[in-house]
Amino acid sequence: MEYHNEIEAMDYLFDRLFPICRSITGPGLRETLDILGEYLPLEQFGVKTGTRVFDWEIPKEWHIRNAWLKGPNGEIIADFKKNNLHVVNYSAPVNRKIELEELKNHLFTDPNLPDAIPYVTSYYKERWGFCLSHNEYLKLSPGEYHVFIDSEFINGELNYSQTILPGQTDREILISSYVCHPSMANNELSGPIVAAFLYNRLAKWKKRRFTYRFVFAPETIGSITYLNRFGEHLIDKLHSGLVFTCLGGQTGLNYKLSRRQNSSIDNMVNHLFKTGVLKGTLRPFTPIGGSDERQYCSPGFNLPVGQIARMVYGSYPGYHNSLDDKDTMTIKSLYQSVNEIELILRGLELDGIYINQSPYGEVKLDRHGLYPDINAPGARKHSTNQVMDQRKQLNCILTLLNFADGEHTLLEIAKKCNCSVFDLKDIIDLLINKGLIKGPFIEKGVGF
Amino acid sequence: MEYHNEIEAMDYLFDRLFPICRSITGPGLRETLDILGEYLPLEQFGVKTGTRVFDWEIPKEWHIRNAWLKGPNGEIIADFKKNNLHVVNYSAPVNRKIELEELKNHLFTDPNLPDAIPYVTSYYKERWGFCLSHNEYLKLSPGEYHVFIDSEFINGELNYSQTILPGQTDREILISSYVCHPSMANNELSGPIVAAFLYNRLAKWKKRRFTYRFVFAPETIGSITYLNRFGEHLIDKLHSGLVFTCLGGQTGLNYKLSRRQNSSIDNMVNHLFKTGVLKGTLRPFTPIGGSDERQYCSPGFNLPVGQIARMVYGSYPGYHNSLDDKDTMTIKSLYQSVNEIELILRGLELDGIYINQSPYGEVKLDRHGLYPDINAPGARKHSTNQVMDQRKQLNCILTLLNFADGEHTLLEIAKKCNCSVFDLKDIIDLLINKGLIKGPFIEKGVGF
Amino acid sequence: MEYHNEIEAMDYLFDRLFPICRSITGPGLRETLDILGEYLPLEQFGVKTGTRVFDWEIPKEWHIRNAWLKGPNGEIIADFKKNNLHVVNYSAPVNRKIELEELKNHLFTDPNLPDAIPYVTSYYKERWGFCLSHNEYLKLSPGEYHVFIDSEFINGELNYSQTILPGQTDREILISSYVCHPSMANNELSGPIVAAFLYNRLAKWKKRRFTYRFVFAPETIGSITYLNRFGEHLIDKLHSGLVFTCLGGQTGLNYKLSRRQNSSIDNMVNHLFKTGVLKGTLRPFTPIGGSDERQYCSPGFNLPVGQIARMVYGSYPGYHNSLDDKDTMTIKSLYQSVNEIELILRGLELDGIYINQSPYGEVKLDRHGLYPDINAPGARKHSTNQVMDQRKQLNCILTLLNFADGEHTLLEIAKKCNCSVFDLKDIIDLLINKGLIKGPFIEKGVGF
Repeated sequence: MEYHNEIEAMDYLFDRLFPICRSITGPGLRETLDILGEYLPLEQFGVKTGTRVFDWEIPKEWHIRNAWLKGPNGEIIADFKKNNLHVVNYSAPVNRKIELEELKNHLFTDPNLPDAIPYVTSYYKERWGFCLSHNEYLKLSPGEYHVFIDSEFINGELNYSQTILPGQTDREILISSYVCHPSMANNELSGPIVAAFLYNRLAKWKKRRFTYRFVFAPETIGSITYLNRFGEHLIDKLHSGLVFTCLGGQTGLNYKLSRRQNSSIDNMVNHLFKTGVLKGTLRPFTPIGGSDERQYCSPGFNLPVGQIARMVYGSYPGYHNSLDDKDTMTIKSLYQSVNEIELILRGLELDGIYINQSPYGEVKLDRHGLYPDINAPGARKHSTNQVMDQRKQLNCILTLLNFADGEHTLLEIAKKCNCSVFDLKDIIDLLINKGLIKGPFIEKGVGF
Repeated sequence: MEYHNEIEAMDYLFDRLFPICRSITGPGLRETLDILGEYLPLEQFGVKTGTRVFDWEIPKEWHIRNAWLKGPNGEIIADFKKNNLHVVNYSAPVNRKIELEELKNHLFTDPNLPDAIPYVTSYYKERWGFCLSHNEYLKLSPGEYHVFIDSEFINGELNYSQTILPGQTDREILISSYVCHPSMANNELSGPIVAAFLYNRLAKWKKRRFTYRFVFAPETIGSITYLNRFGEHLIDKLHSGLVFTCLGGQTGLNYKLSRRQNSSIDNMVNHLFKTGVLKGTLRPFTPIGGSDERQYCSPGFNLPVGQIARMVYGSYPGYHNSLDDKDTMTIKSLYQSVNEIELILRGLELDGIYINQSPYGEVKLDRHGLYPDINAPGARKHSTNQVMDQRKQLNCILTLLNFADGEHTLLEIAKKCNCSVFDLKDIIDLLINKGLIKGPFIEKGVGF
Repeated sequence: MEYHNEIEAMDYLFDRLFPICRSITGPGLRETLDILGEYLPLEQFGVKTGTRVFDWEIPKEWHIRNAWLKGPNGEIIADFKKNNLHVVNYSAPVNRKIELEELKNHLFTDPNLPDAIPYVTSYYKERWGFCLSHNEYLKLSPGEYHVFIDSEFINGELNYSQTILPGQTDREILISSYVCHPSMANNELSGPIVAAFLYNRLAKWKKRRFTYRFVFAPETIGSITYLNRFGEHLIDKLHSGLVFTCLGGQTGLNYKLSRRQNSSIDNMVNHLFKTGVLKGTLRPFTPIGGSDERQYCSPGFNLPVGQIARMVYGSYPGYHNSLDDKDTMTIKSLYQSVNEIELILRGLELDGIYINQSPYGEVKLDRHGLYPDINAPGARKHSTNQVMDQRKQLNCILTLLNFADGEHTLLEIAKKCNCSVFDLKDIIDLLINKGLIKGPFIEKGVGF
């Protein structure tokens, strides 16, 4: 059963990726991109330390080998090998003994979640630190502590990967996910795992109207670095994009509109939510908080890129701490995300502009086998549910033909038909096969 | 008294047209057009059988001379000469004896209206059949029946007629009505009768800004055939149009918006309903169901043509059966329709763009005799209702002059004045006579 | 204390201007403009009697020296020297004895305000008359009255004044106030006094983006005469304008939208009311009633000029009569009007289009000292109110940078930040100083 196989395969990939100590640069990032490269044909890119990317600069690589904190009696308080969240991400090396009072300036806890080890980063200001559960922190007794972080900053590169899945046109759909968080499930691995498995779904489609671009990069600095190279191309070619984040959890989908607020992808997700095809909620665009859509939607680019999530950052206890694990997230929810996002993309493939090929006067439907050849009360009298469906289908045909005028998108026509775009799929295929309509075209104004 | 005369004249025309067995082609159609031609100077057109008109083809002419159904004992069950609805419209000839079981495949009834003879057509699929009241149908006993239909299909033509009533400009208003239903009152004769009498009203107007075009054609195939010849002209010249259907009945008007939803005629009818000048309701445009507006509003033409009705198809028991007679419909309601549609057209004649001829600073109203020459509390103190009307008139003058700027239609100005366009008519005449405004112009952006 | 000084200075100016018998022409008008010229560097203009200005003509000058009405016993009933409202403004000369019955045709009272002397004018129709309180009127006994008006109509000129306060650009803001009413406080002197003191505020500003134009002219005929000369210039250069009227009284501000309804000044005042920066209410534009905005917003000009008032005409008992004095109006409310209108103008100076100078990807805020250099729960945990303000400031910075794209005005950005434009002032200064944004520009579409 494919169902089981796909979930099991995701689970397996998850378990390989989870223990790796990723950061915005370094070996953990490269190892992660290498493993993902087994699932889709990724091309890996490296940009040298010190390179200017817009208002940013590629930092040195962070190499972390080991780290521990020992108490006055030599007991291990925090051990990087047990949980890589214990060390502040991008910590400078240190190896010395200090009193508790001084040490406290380097300890991070979350009193509201006293059992969780928080996730702390200090990418652009050199410091060192350890993260503990607040309960462990409260047990610390005065005395001399030994802090040891075996890390190193070296001139290296920032890495990201991408692959292109070609379609019939060069108009593109972007899937972008980030790979820079250490051992956390929903707010890291959900995105790249869903993206990798989604790729394999799309690769099996019989045809793709759009060309699909999958990008894996560290969050923020990675997408900025990516845009520095590919941003102009995206301005030219991008039809729609999705940033993947937090795609696990038992909730419905949670979609953050692109900055344009009414791009094709915005309208499609809204449509699928409104018609009940998918369960989910919309959020407005904001440059405050979020993921890489903040870069894609920066004013110079203003790309039609939304953000798709499920149990979204900030809304669950495990956000940015050690509680964010496989049990909280569930692999099954990732499988559901693959299914649902595939449906959104099928919607985009179907959407667009259709053109009635006989736009002057009504199409003579009976000539094309689309209409009863008698007009009598009896025809409706003995109606069954099936005949009702025929009536509904006839109404959709008439509506579609009338508004397939180069000015109305399929989404707009579906709204007039009071149904989803998928409810119109068979009719569209039928009318295309009979030569009555052509499409879908991507842009309005194609004309007759 | 003209009132009586006009109603009586309508009644007389009705009685001449009612018995004729019309169809989408043939002698009944031609006879109807000939009779209408006594009331307005119609030019008749014929398009040959087999001619392609867009996605359609002109069918053979249907000639029906006689038809009856005799029972096992020779009793007449259905007689075309008594009611032409008894025969399925476009029935093929037949003359044979058959058993009741087989006959039933050719009988049509409406069990929901057991006393009504339904109206059934089979234009584009050759078959034969009879229509009965369901009560008669239930009485049929087994045995041999004699079916006789003396009809014929011949290569001939499809006919339609039109006339042009010229106005000051070549921008046109179209009145289109259909003439293809046999003996039914509201859903056939109401339209052409109202159109014929409306023509004579417009012909008596002192001036017409628009050129009026009256078209009588069989429904659907007729308007498609008409558009095949005159559609491009209409795209070029048409300002507004109305399809007449079901204009009898004691209800208010019922207007179906054009596909554009906000054309001049749409806005005018909406305005007259909203301001209470006319009683009626609006329906949205839909390509599902309706009359010839479906052709005028097909996407290739998308003409500004609405549909005007009163007791609209589908909403009354007599729809498409023998209950649709003069008593149900009433001739008086046709007279009311003429009055009300004439008012709508007067509204269109008045509407448009007016241009203030002194647009820089206010017009000095007292210099033109439009303002009291003293500003004192006494002037308002002794105010009577009449003076209040003067105040209201002054406000309307100020509003009209301010917004007679080439960008606001009269409808928009009337809305600002919180009155109907007709309430502004005297003021407009006054200001035109004083040379203070010019208009109406048809298009926006005329400028100063 | 400057507060006291400014109010006292206004009070002193009020007392100088109040007794003067102004009209739309003549010595009273000139004297008023001369006195105002001591407060701001006015250039005075004169347009000759008989000159055509659009649909109007400059009238003769009215010179009034004295006027009184004596009763049958020689008692003084009305004395121009005591209150210049006693004589109908623009009265023709008269010196004769007449019976009470005839006299009554020349007497004006307001029965609804029996103690008030009404203000009556007859500019464009030659007549003479006296205005009395209704209580005095009721006491008049039959007999012979002596009417004496020592007035004269001479060929002269209509006067108005203006001054220009230059700014960095030639885009202008107009302040227009009228000077044609005799001894009334709110509906005359409030406007020119607020304008004169506002001028001196603006003159002290460190910089002005806009050039400010102050105009003092008789109402209606004066602004029409002004537009006849400067209207084309204003069409070219005017960014925003305000007509000052009725700026006294204890109520909040009362703003009448310009004819465009959404010009910059309309949006700014609306914004300041909505955000609670100023207390006040909006009225829609109407050409019915009002002050000189009727001329600036006549359709040929359609300038972005609103009208700002406080205790607005028609809404208070003293309107257009002798009750409109300093006690009703209060000088302190004029001081408040200067403050509040200065704030509106500061808003306009701040509003406009800002351009993010690093629009590709997010600005790296920590590099510019605008962001904490660590991302940890502790940073928020120990948050104080001050830290909350930092979070709010950070959100405003992100929102401003994202929408500083050449398409969004500061007003629109402030709305997204849920604050007033003034709340963003420090952030704007900060970002400009750091070279992160440029602006404000006046027009949209400046681009990156």
